[in-house]
Amino acid sequence: MESIARLSLNQITTERASLEATVEACARHGIPYVAVWRHKIAEVGLERAVRLVRDAGVRVSSVCRGGMFPAPTAAGRAARIDDNRRAVDEAAALGAEVLILVCGPAPDRDIGAARGMVADGIAEVVPYARERGVRLGIEPLHPAFAAERSCITTLREARCLAQTFDPATVGIVADVYHIWWDPELYDEIARARGHVVGFHVSDWLVPVRDVLMNRGMMGDGVIELPRIQAAVQGAGYAGPIEVEIMNEAIWNTPLDTLLPLIKERYVACV
Amino acid sequence: MESIARLSLNQITTERASLEATVEACARHGIPYVAVWRHKIAEVGLERAVRLVRDAGVRVSSVCRGGMFPAPTAAGRAARIDDNRRAVDEAAALGAEVLILVCGPAPDRDIGAARGMVADGIAEVVPYARERGVRLGIEPLHPAFAAERSCITTLREARCLAQTFDPATVGIVADVYHIWWDPELYDEIARARGHVVGFHVSDWLVPVRDVLMNRGMMGDGVIELPRIQAAVQGAGYAGPIEVEIMNEAIWNTPLDTLLPLIKERYVACV
Repeated sequence: MESIARLSLNQITTERASLEATVEACARHGIPYVAVWRHKIAEVGLERAVRLVRDAGVRVSSVCRGGMFPAPTAAGRAARIDDNRRAVDEAAALGAEVLILVCGPAPDRDIGAARGMVADGIAEVVPYARERGVRLGIEPLHPAFAAERSCITTLREARCLAQTFDPATVGIVADVYHIWWDPELYDEIARARGHVVGFHVSDWLVPVRDVLMNRGMMGDGVIELPRIQAAVQGAGYAGPIEVEIMNEAIWNTPLDTLLPLIKERYVACV
Repeated sequence: MESIARLSLNQITTERASLEATVEACARHGIPYVAVWRHKIAEVGLERAVRLVRDAGVRVSSVCRGGMFPAPTAAGRAARIDDNRRAVDEAAALGAEVLILVCGPAPDRDIGAARGMVADGIAEVVPYARERGVRLGIEPLHPAFAAERSCITTLREARCLAQTFDPATVGIVADVYHIWWDPELYDEIARARGHVVGFHVSDWLVPVRDVLMNRGMMGDGVIELPRIQAAVQGAGYAGPIEVEIMNEAIWNTPLDTLLPLIKERYVACV
């Protein structure tokens, strides 16, 4: 059990299952943490989500996601801030350690301006999150998603942004799928000491087909997982490690087959 | 004519056409440069390729591609060097300004070791290229291709690598599709002053489907082309600008429809 003491099942890995089925399976297979997505909370309502997680005896490593700050109008940006406050509320209710921020794409061709909207948006959410004891985790996304999901694409950019805030409230989330290719990967992980608030694992499959759904089970791709894990640990991160895999074949695997495989690969490959 | 004086048709944009049809179409539509791919040279043989280009009165901006340096064995790496020397010969025979280097992926999970093989490989090819008057252009590829095409993914990495060599022989190639997302884009273009030996344009379409074939015609995507072009020009690059688009719909467009559209969009959007 010690070897999986930090393991968290990110719920997108079991996208076809309900929150109830997922947390029950975590409990049955001894997986101590779950990362909860908001569309799964919405399916059952927040109160019932809180009860399901509590009754299963599973802890919540993160809620996914806040962010999506850039919008073409001030009213649009204000609506995003409101939605982020609701996400903070959900994270607080679930006792989540972190609210993941997927920062959002530019609404037009001006990615620089969008980055400014992200910084402004986080600044607006910070006081609300601090009051509720929720940390915000800026997750840089792979540059393949720069036009559709996040204008924040590198560890360096996420770290520099996080360092403009109190580290008790804002940090960065390192997801191997998004960062493995970075020539400054290890330097940046070291520089992020004290700012890492989440660590996500999966693998990069070859060949790439659909880049969104290309994530694989740890060990099935090209990512140097043990080296990255050692670096993140060396930078002081000792929290939950989420397994986050978007992949149709994995989504179609029954939970009682999938969860033992996740545990096995986590122990062997991470 | 002045407005398209730097325009080059990269031959992958007309992948379904022969070299002969492509250079004839360039001549007919007043496009002064072509960028030639080696699989198209192989179809007709080098001597005939040289004659076709010369007879059409079109200049060769680049030959694509050398590179692919990493291999699991010393013998494999030596074979790659030999192939790069043949690519230099082809570039020299065609009077190309630059041989594009697509540096190659790691043969295993050790992307750092692969980067070392790239540096070693370029060092081995440099004397041969210098003697033949061919410049080598290191092209950083989008991180989506890190596992399959190039372990060199950012302008910074390409620039730092190029700067270990004589700038008369080794430089970098900036392709907007590969670099547009980079948070350090404009800083890095400025730092690359004196080292830019090629500039490629296309656009990043939304949504992304197949990331390899996702390139669009200039103006159809999210890339800030005029700003990037101004930055590259500001960094001292005054050479040919290649239109390089891998896209099935464009490949299926007749040349006498496609080339006028390329000219129009080049003038309007770049």
